[in-house]
Amino acid sequence: MLSNLFENGTESARVAWSQLPHSDEGELDGAGLLSTTTSDRNGVESLDYEVIENYAYREEQAQRGKLFVIFNAGVKWFFALLIGIGTGLAAVFINISVENFAGWKFALIFNIIQKSYLAGCLIYILINLALVFSSVYIITQFAPAAAGSGIPEIKGYLNGVDVHGILLFRTLIGKIFGSIGSVGGGLALGKEGLPIEGGSTKYHLSSRWLQGFKSDRDRRDLVTCGCAAGVAAAFRAPVGGVLFALEEVTSWWRSQLMWRVFFTSAIVAVVVRMAMGWCKSENCGHFGSGGFIIWDISDGQEDYSFEELLPMALIGVIGGLLGALFNQLTTYVTRWRRNYLHKKGNRVKIYEACLISVLTSVISFGLPLLRNCTPCPDSDPGFEIECPRAPGVDGNYVNFYCSKDKEYNDLATIFFNTQDDAIRNLFSAKTIHEFSARSLLTFLVMFYTLAVVTFGTAVPAGQFVPGIMIGSTYGRLVGIFTVNHYKKLNIEEGTYALLGAASFLGGSMRMTVSLCVIMVEITNNLKFLPLIMLVLLISKAVGDVFNEGLYDEQARLKGIPLLESRPKYEMRKRTAREACGNQKVLSLPRVVKVADVVSILRSNEHNGFPVIDHTRNGERLVIGLMLRSHLLVLLHSKIDFQHSPIPCHSTGGSRAIRPNFSEFAKPVSSKGISIDDIYLSSDDLEMYIDLAPFLNPSPYVVPEDMSLTKVYNLFRQLGLRHLFVVPRASRVMGVITRKDLLIEEETENSATMELQSTSVRGQRHERRRSAAENGGDLERPLLNGLLVQHQR
Amino acid sequence: MLSNLFENGTESARVAWSQLPHSDEGELDGAGLLSTTTSDRNGVESLDYEVIENYAYREEQAQRGKLFVIFNAGVKWFFALLIGIGTGLAAVFINISVENFAGWKFALIFNIIQKSYLAGCLIYILINLALVFSSVYIITQFAPAAAGSGIPEIKGYLNGVDVHGILLFRTLIGKIFGSIGSVGGGLALGKEGLPIEGGSTKYHLSSRWLQGFKSDRDRRDLVTCGCAAGVAAAFRAPVGGVLFALEEVTSWWRSQLMWRVFFTSAIVAVVVRMAMGWCKSENCGHFGSGGFIIWDISDGQEDYSFEELLPMALIGVIGGLLGALFNQLTTYVTRWRRNYLHKKGNRVKIYEACLISVLTSVISFGLPLLRNCTPCPDSDPGFEIECPRAPGVDGNYVNFYCSKDKEYNDLATIFFNTQDDAIRNLFSAKTIHEFSARSLLTFLVMFYTLAVVTFGTAVPAGQFVPGIMIGSTYGRLVGIFTVNHYKKLNIEEGTYALLGAASFLGGSMRMTVSLCVIMVEITNNLKFLPLIMLVLLISKAVGDVFNEGLYDEQARLKGIPLLESRPKYEMRKRTAREACGNQKVLSLPRVVKVADVVSILRSNEHNGFPVIDHTRNGERLVIGLMLRSHLLVLLHSKIDFQHSPIPCHSTGGSRAIRPNFSEFAKPVSSKGISIDDIYLSSDDLEMYIDLAPFLNPSPYVVPEDMSLTKVYNLFRQLGLRHLFVVPRASRVMGVITRKDLLIEEETENSATMELQSTSVRGQRHERRRSAAENGGDLERPLLNGLLVQHQR
Repeated sequence: MLSNLFENGTESARVAWSQLPHSDEGELDGAGLLSTTTSDRNGVESLDYEVIENYAYREEQAQRGKLFVIFNAGVKWFFALLIGIGTGLAAVFINISVENFAGWKFALIFNIIQKSYLAGCLIYILINLALVFSSVYIITQFAPAAAGSGIPEIKGYLNGVDVHGILLFRTLIGKIFGSIGSVGGGLALGKEGLPIEGGSTKYHLSSRWLQGFKSDRDRRDLVTCGCAAGVAAAFRAPVGGVLFALEEVTSWWRSQLMWRVFFTSAIVAVVVRMAMGWCKSENCGHFGSGGFIIWDISDGQEDYSFEELLPMALIGVIGGLLGALFNQLTTYVTRWRRNYLHKKGNRVKIYEACLISVLTSVISFGLPLLRNCTPCPDSDPGFEIECPRAPGVDGNYVNFYCSKDKEYNDLATIFFNTQDDAIRNLFSAKTIHEFSARSLLTFLVMFYTLAVVTFGTAVPAGQFVPGIMIGSTYGRLVGIFTVNHYKKLNIEEGTYALLGAASFLGGSMRMTVSLCVIMVEITNNLKFLPLIMLVLLISKAVGDVFNEGLYDEQARLKGIPLLESRPKYEMRKRTAREACGNQKVLSLPRVVKVADVVSILRSNEHNGFPVIDHTRNGERLVIGLMLRSHLLVLLHSKIDFQHSPIPCHSTGGSRAIRPNFSEFAKPVSSKGISIDDIYLSSDDLEMYIDLAPFLNPSPYVVPEDMSLTKVYNLFRQLGLRHLFVVPRASRVMGVITRKDLLIEEETENSATMELQSTSVRGQRHERRRSAAENGGDLERPLLNGLLVQHQR
Repeated sequence: MLSNLFENGTESARVAWSQLPHSDEGELDGAGLLSTTTSDRNGVESLDYEVIENYAYREEQAQRGKLFVIFNAGVKWFFALLIGIGTGLAAVFINISVENFAGWKFALIFNIIQKSYLAGCLIYILINLALVFSSVYIITQFAPAAAGSGIPEIKGYLNGVDVHGILLFRTLIGKIFGSIGSVGGGLALGKEGLPIEGGSTKYHLSSRWLQGFKSDRDRRDLVTCGCAAGVAAAFRAPVGGVLFALEEVTSWWRSQLMWRVFFTSAIVAVVVRMAMGWCKSENCGHFGSGGFIIWDISDGQEDYSFEELLPMALIGVIGGLLGALFNQLTTYVTRWRRNYLHKKGNRVKIYEACLISVLTSVISFGLPLLRNCTPCPDSDPGFEIECPRAPGVDGNYVNFYCSKDKEYNDLATIFFNTQDDAIRNLFSAKTIHEFSARSLLTFLVMFYTLAVVTFGTAVPAGQFVPGIMIGSTYGRLVGIFTVNHYKKLNIEEGTYALLGAASFLGGSMRMTVSLCVIMVEITNNLKFLPLIMLVLLISKAVGDVFNEGLYDEQARLKGIPLLESRPKYEMRKRTAREACGNQKVLSLPRVVKVADVVSILRSNEHNGFPVIDHTRNGERLVIGLMLRSHLLVLLHSKIDFQHSPIPCHSTGGSRAIRPNFSEFAKPVSSKGISIDDIYLSSDDLEMYIDLAPFLNPSPYVVPEDMSLTKVYNLFRQLGLRHLFVVPRASRVMGVITRKDLLIEEETENSATMELQSTSVRGQRHERRRSAAENGGDLERPLLNGLLVQHQR
C-alpha cells in the first residue's frame, strides 16, 4: 500500500508535504474543537514568509531535483533583469515627459510676459490647473492607491504587512501618468516617488506571465529589487538604491538577496545611462538639460577649514528641527484630511488639489513680482555665467519683471522655475551673493508651507525633491552668513546648500547610510562625504528627540503595523503568555468535519489555527499550523473532502487527486476568497477533511514565560506571522550548538534527491533503528509512521 | 519574608534575575543528574549573545531606571568616537611610517645605482631583508595572532566564534609594527589588513578602562564599529567601511548598530582628512605624495561605448578565474604550511619569511634589468608627464638601467616601485602605450606567484593591495588590446586597469556592494560605478562556480566554524532531533550538589546545561539553561554554596551576598578559569547550589521534528549558542501575531521602573487574578510563586 502512494505522480507532491514528520503513530480523535486561538485580530493581512516558505519548498521538492531549483533561480535573475530594464525605462519616460511639459510651459510663459504679465499669470495658472486636474482625476477615478509617495506602503510590505492595492498594475499606470501631471503642474512635490514604487509594482505584470512567484517570500524579494531599482532610477544612484532597500528591509535581509538587488541596480544604471546618451543628441526635447535628479557640484568648494564645522553643525541642528516639525505638521494635516476632508468623497479631493494648484501658481508667480530686481554682478573675465540668462535656457539670473537690462530677480530664479533648475541654482558654485537673505527666507517660509499643505493630496508625490528644496534654501542662507562672517574666498554657498539638503532629508526621513550615498551620487562629488555624514548624524539625532521618521509616522497614520527594529523597553517585563491576552485559542483536530471548519471560520477573523492530534497513548500533540487561506481553498475545491473521519492515507490511493498546489498560492494584492463566497451543500457539511497534508508541520514555538523582548526578536528576525505559545517543555531531547549545524555537503546529494521516495523509507527505517537503540524512549511524531500504522 | 528580599540592595539584583518567572510552585528534587546534554563538542568557543543579553539586562535592571540605560548608551557612543579617532590616528601612523621607509629606501637605491647596479641590488636586498626580519621576529616572538590579514578571525568573531588572541592589545601592537616592516620590506602584500583589525582590537584597551562592555553583544558591536573604522581608515572609504562591516555581519545587524558604525566611520574620515591636511605642509616626509591607498582617476575616460562592454565582461571573467585560482592555490599553500612547515617552530617561520623577502627583492630588481628600455613617447604640448621622471620623485616612466637619456623601463615602473606608486602608474590616464604587453604579462605571472607564496607567512598582511596590483595588470593588458582593436581615442587603459582591479577582488573576496563602494571611493570617481558593478557581478559569479571566497576558505582552514547565510540544501531533509545525534543530554536539577557539578563539568566539554525542576505535582519542567562559565564562577567564589538542598530563598535573607555580577562577565579573549583550576575541599563538595538566580530562564526551544533549515535560520538569525530540542507541545496556550507585538509606549513607563519591586508583586497579583479568572486552568511556572510557596 505504501508503494502505491509513491507510484502516483501527483501523489508524490502530497508525500513531499508529509515528508517532514508531523504526527505520532496514533489514532485520531474526531472531536477537539474546544481549544481556542487568536490571530491577526483587526484583520490586517500579514505576509507569511515562514509558512509559505515551507509550502514552496515542498512543491519544489515535488518537482524533483536540483534542475528545477536552478531553473527557478534563473527565473528570479531574469525577473531582476526585467525589473531593472523596466524601471529604468519608466523613469526615463517620466522624466522626459515632466521635463518637456515643464520646459514648454515656462518657455511659453516667458514669451507671453514679454507682452503682458497679467496674461502670463493667468495662462500659467490655467496650465498648472489643467495638469494637476488631470493628475488628480486619474488618481481618484482610476488608481486611488497611487496617491502619495507609496513608500510607507512599500516599507510596510517589506516589514511583512500586505497593503491591498499597492501592487496592482493600475496603480503603476496611475503613478506614472498622475505624477507627470502633478509634477509638471508645479506642485510642491517631487517626481521620484513613482519609479520607487513603480519598480516594486512591476513584478505584478511578470507574475501574470509566469506563475513563478507564488510565495510571499519571492514576492518580497522582487519588491525589494524593485524598490532599489526605483531609487537607483530616480536619482541615478545605484548604490544608494541598494542601501535604501537595505535600510528599509534589514529585518529579513539575506546576502543572496543583496546580490540580486545589486544586479538590478546595476542594470538600471546602465539603462538610464544609455537613454541619457541617446537624449544627448537632442532627441528628447527639453530633457537633457534638466533631466534626472542630478546636480553635479564637482566644481564646488575644494576644501574646508576647521571653523566651518560650526555653521555646518548649525545646519544639522536646523535640519533636525525643521524636519521634525515637517513630520509633525504633515501628521496633523494628514489626520485632519483623513478624518474630515477626504471622507466627503472624490469630488472634494479634486477640489482640494485644484485649489492648492491655484494657490501654488499664484504664490510662485506673484511673490517674485513684488521683489525688486538686483543688478547683475560685475562680470570679470573668469566669470562665465551669463546674467541675466537668455530667455529659453535654464540657469541662474532670471530676468523676471526687471526694468533694466542688466538686472535679475533672485526670487524668481528659484521660485518661478522647475524644481530641478531651482535646486541647481541653489547648489551652484561661483555665484556668491546671487541670492539675498530676504529672498531665501521668503522662499523658505512659503515653500515649506506649500510642501506641508500639498503633502497628502490625492496625487502621486515624492518627498525627496521638496525636501532638497527646503534644505538647500536654509543651507544657502547659512552659507551667506558664513561667507560674510569668515570672509574667506574659498567658501561656496552652494556647498552649504548641499549640506542643508542633506540635513533636512536626514531630519525628516531619518535614514543615514542610504541618504548619504544618495546625496553623494546625486551631486557626483565625494569630497563632502564626511561632512554629509556628520550633518546627517546631527539632524537625525535632533529629529529623533521629537518624533519618528516621516515614513514611520505616515505608516502609523495609515494603520500599517510596522514592527520596529528594536523591541519596546517595557516588553522586557512582559511574557509571551501575557502578550496573547485572554483570547481563546481555537484549534482544529487533524481530521475535521467540514461543518466545524465553516463555523470556526465564520466565528472569528483569525488567520491561523493550531492543529491538534492525539497519539496512540491518548497524549495530545500540536501537529502544526493551518492557515485560514488554505482552509478556504480546501473548502472551495472540495476535492479533499472525505466521508470517514479516518485519516485519508488509510483509504488508499483511490482519491489521490490534488490537481495543483498553486491554487494555495496567495493572490496578488487582493483579499482572496472569503468564507461567505463558498457554497457548501448539507452533504458537504457532513464530510471530513484530513488536514495533515496541508498544514505547516513545524511552526516556531516559544515557552509561555519567555520575555516578550525575546519573542519580539524571534518574530521580527524570522519574519513570522504566527508564533505558538506553548507550556514549558518537560525535558530536553538535545542541545543544538554551532557544531551541529556545520554539516559538510554530502556527495550523494543528487542521488538522494533522485531517489526521494526510497530515501523517505530509508530514513524511516533509520529512525526506527535509532529509536530501538534508545530503548524506545524517544517518541517521534511521524506521519510516515502513521501511514504504516493504518496500513496494518 | 518576601519584603525582606527587597530591602536588601544587593539582593535586589538577585530578584531582578529571577523577576522573569522560571519555575512553578513546586518541591525540589535533589537527584536528576541522569539526563544528558551535548554542546560545543570540539571545544570551539562560541559567543553567546542571547544568554548574555539576558544576563546583561538583568544587571541593568538591577541598577534601576532609565538613567543608567542612557548613560550606557552614551558610553557606547563615546567608545565609538574613541575607536574612530584611534583607528584614524593608527592608520595615519602606519601610512606615514611605511611611506617614509619605502620612500627613503628607493631614494637611496636610486642614488647608489647611479654608480653601481650590483651594489644597489645588494643593498636593496639587505634593507628589505632587515625590514622583513624585524617584522617576522616581532610576530613570532611577541604577537603570533597578528600574522595574516585577521579578516577571517574578525569574520568569525562577528559570526559568533571567539578566536582566542585576536582581541589582545599585543596583537594590535604587533600588527602595527610588524606591518611596517613587512610592507616597507617590499613583500607582495598590503598594509591595509592592520587598521581593519586594529580598529577592532582597540576596544580592548577601552574595556580595561571602563568595565562597560562585559557582554558579548556589546563587544561584538564594538568590533563591528572597529571593523568599519579600519576599512574606512585604510582606504579613506567611510561608506565602504560601513558596507564592509555590513556584508560581513548581516546575520545580526540591527539598525541602531548601523547608525553607530556610520558615526565611527565619519569620525575616521574627519580624522584622516585632518591628518592629511597637516601632512600637506611637508611635515611627514615622503608621505603625502603616496600616502593612503587612494588613486584618483578623475581625469580618466569620460564615456564608454556599447562595444566596450565586451572587453569589460572579459575582464570580469578573467577576474573570476584568476581570483578563484588564487583562493585555491593559497588554500593549498596554507594547508601545506600548516601541516608541514610551521609545525617545525618559529625558526622555520623566520627563515621562510626571509627567504621570500630575498626572492622578492631579487625578482623585482633583476627582472627589470633584463628588460630593454623603451624610448619616451614624443612629447606634445598637452602632454604634461615627464619622461623619464626626475630621480627622487614618484611617477611614471622610471629610468632604470637605460643607456640613453630619453628612455624608460616599463617593467621597473611597476615592479621596482612601491605598490601604491605602481598602482597609480597602472591606473594613470593619458599614458597609452606606456607599458608593453610583454612587461605586463611578465609582471602578472611573477607577482601572482609571489602573492600566492607570500600569503600565509608569519607577517601581518592585507590582500587588497596585491589584489589590486594583479587585477590592474591584466586589466591594463586587456585595455591595450582594446585600444589597439577599436582604435578609438577616448579609451583609457587606466580605466581598464581599474576594472581589472575590481574584477580580481570580486573574484577572490566575493564581496559585492562594499567592494564596489570601496573601489569608487578609492578612485574618487563615480562615473564607472555601473561598470564596476557589472564587472564585480561577473567575476563573483564566475568565481562562485569554483570555490568559496578567500576569507571563507581561510576561515575553514583555520577551523573557524562560520555559519553561512544560507542553510545547506540537505538540511531540509533532516530534523532538529537528528542534528543532535545520539549524544546524551546532561542536565542539572535546580539545587545541585557541588560534587555533582564538579563531576559533570569534568566529564565533558559542554558549555551549556539544561536545568530541570519539578512542580508540586511531580511534573518535570525545563526551567532554563546554565552556562559552564557561570557554574565555574559559582564554584570559584563559593559564596552561593548552601548546606541544605532546599532552594535558597526559603532560607531567608541571611546569605544574601552576591558581591558583583560582573564576575560572571566573560574575560576578553582568554579561556577563563577551568574546572581543574578550582580547589574545593571535601566540605565544599557536600554543599549545594541553587542555580535558579543564575540560569537563563528562557532559552529558545524548537520541537524535535522541526526541519533543520528552520532551526538553522533561527540559530543564525538570533545569534544563538545553544538551542534546546524539546518534544512537541501538547497544547497551544496562545498564538502571537503582529498585533500582539505592537504595544504602545506606556505613559507610566518611568513610574513602573522606579517602583520596580512593587511592580513585581503587583504583577504577580495580577497574574494570580487572571489565573483565577481562567478557572485555574493555566499553569504558570513562576519563580516568584515558588518563593511564596517556601515561605509558608
